[in-house]
Amino acid sequence: MSTSADPQLAVPILHGVLETSLCVDDLDSAEQFYAVIMGLEKHSSQPGRHVFFRCGSGMLLLFSAAATSRPGHIVNGGVIPPHGTTGAGHTALAMFESEIDTWRAKLVASGVTIESEVQWPGGGYSLYFRDPSGNSLELATPKLWGLPEV
Amino acid sequence: MSTSADPQLAVPILHGVLETSLCVDDLDSAEQFYAVIMGLEKHSSQPGRHVFFRCGSGMLLLFSAAATSRPGHIVNGGVIPPHGTTGAGHTALAMFESEIDTWRAKLVASGVTIESEVQWPGGGYSLYFRDPSGNSLELATPKLWGLPEV
Repeated sequence: MSTSADPQLAVPILHGVLETSLCVDDLDSAEQFYAVIMGLEKHSSQPGRHVFFRCGSGMLLLFSAAATSRPGHIVNGGVIPPHGTTGAGHTALAMFESEIDTWRAKLVASGVTIESEVQWPGGGYSLYFRDPSGNSLELATPKLWGLPEV
Repeated sequence: MSTSADPQLAVPILHGVLETSLCVDDLDSAEQFYAVIMGLEKHSSQPGRHVFFRCGSGMLLLFSAAATSRPGHIVNGGVIPPHGTTGAGHTALAMFESEIDTWRAKLVASGVTIESEVQWPGGGYSLYFRDPSGNSLELATPKLWGLPEV
């Protein structure tokens, strides 16, 4: 008996977010910011389209929406569906509690304006700032979500 | 000697992406989709503003840009900076190789159109589809990025 048409088919548990995306106006300034200030390891780039970084167990992908919103990008015979956003995206990157002061100092010393700091009622701490394209970035401790520092 | 003004201040290694965000047109249909079809565990929601899900070691946050792009959201005395995007965002969630067929069947049985499938030249496999707001979702194996299935 095939279960391929059964809407109740058991769904495997997802193993996490593998790719997080932000759209940026200027890929060069984004690469400089995420590599030098945020300290991420560059994976690869395609001029005018994207720059990709490793981040923990996943990837942070920065796209030019002007490029990725055009259909017709083919890889190995498969279509990469178009996407692209305008406006300020948001993502949070994980820092540990012991690193809050170092991150604050590093951002300030790098000329990054800290827009806000939040001590969460249930625990956890966030630093908010912007990338060069205006995306809302947050450095947050996992405790914000009841998660361990691993 | 203080090093707080030293631009060369060592940057701690980031511990991964803690929050991945997508903006959606309709929070109710998004909640239904991500909870029932994607099988994610709901963390919390605020009607008209957001619905949050756990996903692996981080969080997938779905926002109404109409709500989050307005300034003035305060938590515990701290400002949550405004953000919000229009257009199709993109994120990839991790599936294992052994789960590709089950996921494809589950999506089809749930009425989700698979927009594309890609066998990556360097290894790894992706299923592409859309959430109800048109965001480009991908289920991908970690091998796509040379990462282990953990």
